[in-house]
Amino acid sequence: MSFQNPVFIPGPTNMPESLRKAVDMPTLDHRSPLFGQILHPALEGVKKVLKSETAKVFIFPSTGTGGWETALTNTLSAGDKVLAARNGMFSHRWIDMCQRHGLDVQIVETPWGAGLPADKYADILKVDADHEIKVVLATHNETATGVRSDIAAVRKALDAANHPAMLFVDGVSSIASMDFRMDEWGVDIAVTGSQKGFMLPAGLAIVGFSPKAMAALETATLPRTFFDVRDMGNGYANNAYPYTPAVGLLNGLNEACKMLLDEGLENVFARHHRIAEGVRQAVSAWGLELCAVSKDVQSDTVSAIRTPEGFNATDIVTHAANKYGVAFGVGLGEVAGKVFRIGHLGSLTDVMTLSGLATAEMCMVDLGLDIKLGSGVAAAQEYYRANQLAMSKAA
Amino acid sequence: MSFQNPVFIPGPTNMPESLRKAVDMPTLDHRSPLFGQILHPALEGVKKVLKSETAKVFIFPSTGTGGWETALTNTLSAGDKVLAARNGMFSHRWIDMCQRHGLDVQIVETPWGAGLPADKYADILKVDADHEIKVVLATHNETATGVRSDIAAVRKALDAANHPAMLFVDGVSSIASMDFRMDEWGVDIAVTGSQKGFMLPAGLAIVGFSPKAMAALETATLPRTFFDVRDMGNGYANNAYPYTPAVGLLNGLNEACKMLLDEGLENVFARHHRIAEGVRQAVSAWGLELCAVSKDVQSDTVSAIRTPEGFNATDIVTHAANKYGVAFGVGLGEVAGKVFRIGHLGSLTDVMTLSGLATAEMCMVDLGLDIKLGSGVAAAQEYYRANQLAMSKAA
Amino acid sequence: MSFQNPVFIPGPTNMPESLRKAVDMPTLDHRSPLFGQILHPALEGVKKVLKSETAKVFIFPSTGTGGWETALTNTLSAGDKVLAARNGMFSHRWIDMCQRHGLDVQIVETPWGAGLPADKYADILKVDADHEIKVVLATHNETATGVRSDIAAVRKALDAANHPAMLFVDGVSSIASMDFRMDEWGVDIAVTGSQKGFMLPAGLAIVGFSPKAMAALETATLPRTFFDVRDMGNGYANNAYPYTPAVGLLNGLNEACKMLLDEGLENVFARHHRIAEGVRQAVSAWGLELCAVSKDVQSDTVSAIRTPEGFNATDIVTHAANKYGVAFGVGLGEVAGKVFRIGHLGSLTDVMTLSGLATAEMCMVDLGLDIKLGSGVAAAQEYYRANQLAMSKAA
Amino acid sequence: MSFQNPVFIPGPTNMPESLRKAVDMPTLDHRSPLFGQILHPALEGVKKVLKSETAKVFIFPSTGTGGWETALTNTLSAGDKVLAARNGMFSHRWIDMCQRHGLDVQIVETPWGAGLPADKYADILKVDADHEIKVVLATHNETATGVRSDIAAVRKALDAANHPAMLFVDGVSSIASMDFRMDEWGVDIAVTGSQKGFMLPAGLAIVGFSPKAMAALETATLPRTFFDVRDMGNGYANNAYPYTPAVGLLNGLNEACKMLLDEGLENVFARHHRIAEGVRQAVSAWGLELCAVSKDVQSDTVSAIRTPEGFNATDIVTHAANKYGVAFGVGLGEVAGKVFRIGHLGSLTDVMTLSGLATAEMCMVDLGLDIKLGSGVAAAQEYYRANQLAMSKAA
Repeated sequence: MSFQNPVFIPGPTNMPESLRKAVDMPTLDHRSPLFGQILHPALEGVKKVLKSETAKVFIFPSTGTGGWETALTNTLSAGDKVLAARNGMFSHRWIDMCQRHGLDVQIVETPWGAGLPADKYADILKVDADHEIKVVLATHNETATGVRSDIAAVRKALDAANHPAMLFVDGVSSIASMDFRMDEWGVDIAVTGSQKGFMLPAGLAIVGFSPKAMAALETATLPRTFFDVRDMGNGYANNAYPYTPAVGLLNGLNEACKMLLDEGLENVFARHHRIAEGVRQAVSAWGLELCAVSKDVQSDTVSAIRTPEGFNATDIVTHAANKYGVAFGVGLGEVAGKVFRIGHLGSLTDVMTLSGLATAEMCMVDLGLDIKLGSGVAAAQEYYRANQLAMSKAA
Repeated sequence: MSFQNPVFIPGPTNMPESLRKAVDMPTLDHRSPLFGQILHPALEGVKKVLKSETAKVFIFPSTGTGGWETALTNTLSAGDKVLAARNGMFSHRWIDMCQRHGLDVQIVETPWGAGLPADKYADILKVDADHEIKVVLATHNETATGVRSDIAAVRKALDAANHPAMLFVDGVSSIASMDFRMDEWGVDIAVTGSQKGFMLPAGLAIVGFSPKAMAALETATLPRTFFDVRDMGNGYANNAYPYTPAVGLLNGLNEACKMLLDEGLENVFARHHRIAEGVRQAVSAWGLELCAVSKDVQSDTVSAIRTPEGFNATDIVTHAANKYGVAFGVGLGEVAGKVFRIGHLGSLTDVMTLSGLATAEMCMVDLGLDIKLGSGVAAAQEYYRANQLAMSKAA
Repeated sequence: MSFQNPVFIPGPTNMPESLRKAVDMPTLDHRSPLFGQILHPALEGVKKVLKSETAKVFIFPSTGTGGWETALTNTLSAGDKVLAARNGMFSHRWIDMCQRHGLDVQIVETPWGAGLPADKYADILKVDADHEIKVVLATHNETATGVRSDIAAVRKALDAANHPAMLFVDGVSSIASMDFRMDEWGVDIAVTGSQKGFMLPAGLAIVGFSPKAMAALETATLPRTFFDVRDMGNGYANNAYPYTPAVGLLNGLNEACKMLLDEGLENVFARHHRIAEGVRQAVSAWGLELCAVSKDVQSDTVSAIRTPEGFNATDIVTHAANKYGVAFGVGLGEVAGKVFRIGHLGSLTDVMTLSGLATAEMCMVDLGLDIKLGSGVAAAQEYYRANQLAMSKAA
Repeated sequence: MSFQNPVFIPGPTNMPESLRKAVDMPTLDHRSPLFGQILHPALEGVKKVLKSETAKVFIFPSTGTGGWETALTNTLSAGDKVLAARNGMFSHRWIDMCQRHGLDVQIVETPWGAGLPADKYADILKVDADHEIKVVLATHNETATGVRSDIAAVRKALDAANHPAMLFVDGVSSIASMDFRMDEWGVDIAVTGSQKGFMLPAGLAIVGFSPKAMAALETATLPRTFFDVRDMGNGYANNAYPYTPAVGLLNGLNEACKMLLDEGLENVFARHHRIAEGVRQAVSAWGLELCAVSKDVQSDTVSAIRTPEGFNATDIVTHAANKYGVAFGVGLGEVAGKVFRIGHLGSLTDVMTLSGLATAEMCMVDLGLDIKLGSGVAAAQEYYRANQLAMSKAA
């Protein structure tokens, strides 16, 4: 596998040159005022990307999984009840984490490929008259299935039931790539990482806490130290960290936020949608279907593509890596072997995307699928050339 | 503060050019076999640095603090008894973490500047006939005081009492810089990070588990997910991670291990000792004293230097940063304002060290201390020129 | 224009990650022995790439044009006669340089698109009974037309005439990408640069002098200082340069040679041929023709593609840059506006190449040419998937 | 020798982090408009650094030596008369170049260590009633001896004689570090390189031509192609180059100019003077003398330090490299073995300088010179701490 080709995994993404350089910095004393000049703008930048006025942002040297744990352990106590739907590998893992931490998860099994069932949430919340459910978990974008759910609808379910449960959203593969509105949607904790929409190496868990989530710190008794947001917040007040921060990644995050906000979030989202739509045109031209069951849940950051019965979709991924030096994503969990995934988030151009589609075509033909070489590429080309956005700046 | 000057903080260290380049890598698919070619050599390299034949090594996208939490949560249950001495800020923090996780810590208060009281440990272990103490915590090198403790002596205390408690060692600021013998000393869990002896950016928690510690996984009930070594181990078996790894840092760790093992661990330790001894010669020439109460506990990675009564040692650190663009370490906790610290670990030459000593002298004179300019430098020069090791390779 | 997309200009090429890192080195004293450890292996590496046992290699902080001037000024005197064919912009420029330096050039005008006329050379050399012609110039690969000439045939022309003229070859866009045999072909001076087959930034003129060319130093009276190979050679003997060398580029050149020789020169050539052949399949599928008039002169490093009468081929290049952020090459000189060029040398994969072809298709359709989207891509895909070489290593 | 230590050679200098990153850029099409966005600001920046309103700036992929050749070959014809003083190795080399190019050099032999003899120039110019002297050469800063000459005085000599000769100044080791006033001093051609005051890797010859020098292009008949400023100027008019430019270095130059102009040229000069003065204080404290014969000619970019009779000064340089991994400069030409040189230009802090002085002391003591360890360091410390400028920004 070669560094010359772009990657088409749903994160870590291809990194813009300027972000790689921002991360690769010499050692800077993290107890000096200079560190504050990196930290605070990064925190502010994330807040804007989350579209929040009121959130407290915390950034840990960790990953999205650590962000989930941060959300749970800072706000809940053993035995607390949590409502969650399982519609893919990442919602599954978050549920599993809850259970390991002694939470009582009410699971709504949902078809992999479908979005979060806001209507079922509504029903459950309505009957929870005693408000035993403390938190509703929602995976905004299921990276495993390429399914984006409607978080506003989940909020409506909560509001309709007049239910005080908090809303925690896993936005790892949506935030900074697809529209996310922390305040408007009443999200209490938003979780993401550095290696997706922020286009950085993995290594940061990024979380936003609403005032309500902050209030929950007082009562939560799940043990936590590394992920304790109180220590983290106290550190920030002194331009510092409770332990050694990942300074280079924070510097990169600061730059990434500047880059995203400079482009304009709506432009970023439109860019992702356009790139994704080209991929979907190709999938149609191939005569294949997405795992996402309907147009409204198609993700703009990753497409999980179903291959015909009897064909092992994972072979495409292996073959692409071995023969063409290109990385796609395999199917996970229930859809293992049934789908392969094309990640199309972050800093990706038409040109790069077309090379991924061309590679996928070669792989499918090599492996005996009845696909016409150039067919998906042509469909995407037609879409891209006819639907041009203003060129982004060199990155 | 300028990137042109070396830093003299006790980690993160100055980074060798080759390690910066190893960390700064393009995106590589962490689910591809190529990742295994980075991961497994890194794990093997760490094992050799720990001087262990039997340890399982786990590496988390986290920091040393996360390594402590990994040690505790994977092996213990709420209410378990732990024995620990408090002789500095880092031992204090580990004790605090135990308490937050519901452990019952028997604390041996120890003067800041003294080493771990192996004799007191021995007494306590002897009387613990029911073996209620599950773990003895030991901070090998107290970064706050510049004190290195005798881990072999702690092992002897356990053996003398014929006590089955596990021995967990915080080697964050010792491992890969000062002699550490996991197997010989019967260490059950060794904890370190990427940003000290491994000369990398912060962002990795590195832990080694003895077979006994691995066995404790079965019974431990403290909640854990992000830091669960079982998931991590299962991942490794498939060349993978339970979540997104910090690939660049792992690549850097692999290179760092090669670099250290290529130099030879004993040479690395001798190099650190020599650089440290030069600093100590300078401190003597200044007429100042170390926080470390005796020669046998002087650390080879950091020196905490006491300033005269009535003088705020922290002013030196602030002044050095503001006027000379140089980073030293402040005193922490009980020794805040009483000491300033010169970190001298990692990739540091005579020449760099002399520049730090020269800066410290200018600061002390600027701030009115009765120090003769050039005096400490001359003492260190004399030591360095007369005590030369074979030159290390360009790094 | 974005750094995310590959470039498709005929040099500077896309740079492998490892070469960028080799070039980006901290300051190293160029008068220290360490410099010799970079310089001498680089010189030896170039010699192997030139397939020469006897050449003296000289490397100047300059470009290929400086290499030409080095060749002329070190071996000739004002009024000396030189034989050269003009079949493209780069042969034209070399002729122009000769004239500026007072040489008497016998020019064989040759159609742009044709190779060097070895037969005409033969005729001319035969009648030059007094051996007035001192040098025959030959541009191995005309970057402007995508034409590779037969240097062995030029050598045969010289031999057939039993003519003692020296043979100077411009291999700027051939050496290290296409077969070049300095000794076997009796090349007296070979000229190249860093930014083509060596995949480095521009900034080095690289020349190899045969013993016969070295002997000509004695009699040459053209003024020269910067490009004097005697000073350069004297410098090398002392691990030094007559002035400040471009150390980072030399370090990169050393690495580039290792990389090429490690892959094997014949493998490098086969790789270039295969990539080029895919491009040519695409051109055929588009119904277009190459500037190169026959298969035997088609270059494996750059294709100049003729567009239909009345269409300004330069528009494709401008449009690709503006709309898609992709760089192709314009036509130069006689073929300006008539061709556009796709550079396909250096570190280029199938996947990258397909993205260039897909872009060219979009541009041509955007600009109204009667091209079917996906057609060229499909032809190249078919060729690439059916004609796989062993995967190169990650670079 | 290690990359960890600063270098103390008189160029290439230590590189600021930001400049290294500016140079290390991916391939950018040098025929695209983006190149113009790098080129033109770089040209403008250099003009400001030269303090000229009227100069045409040309930048070649070459070195300062190429800059000299550019100056001579673009303005002179074989047999033209040139006036030059020889007071060090670099003035010697420029004279040698003139002779190789067939110029008639009137040489004023001047003691190495003395400045240019403006009075002798004046005498010679006065008697040159026929104005046979076409050019006066002046080496602003003799890097070999650490001598800065008075260019304004040379201008006065020309003016006093009412002589129309052009004034060519080698400012390789002065421009961007010490005051240089192209217009005010009536300099017709200023020559420098990238690796000194501009703090970049070697690889660029940078020249400024006055209108008078531009006019001389018309009559000059020395052969030139690579260094022809007419082709270069024509290229610039089209955002291009006559051959492949060193894009990364030009990008670095653009950044370097911004950095210098942002700091303010007078601040840059003051910073260099202050660093140099500390070195001179150390030399005095050692009881040694500079090669520069008087205070008014002491260079602020390099100090050549005389060692006692019978001692081989070059041993210090060799010893420093071998034992301490530090690079100083050797004596060249007439002062070989008699002086060693400490380069102190570019991005150098007090702290870095002190480490160089400390190293020099250790070397001298190791080699048996009667020097007191710490003595020079203390003198420089005293100077630096008492003579602080405003801190420069992190670089």
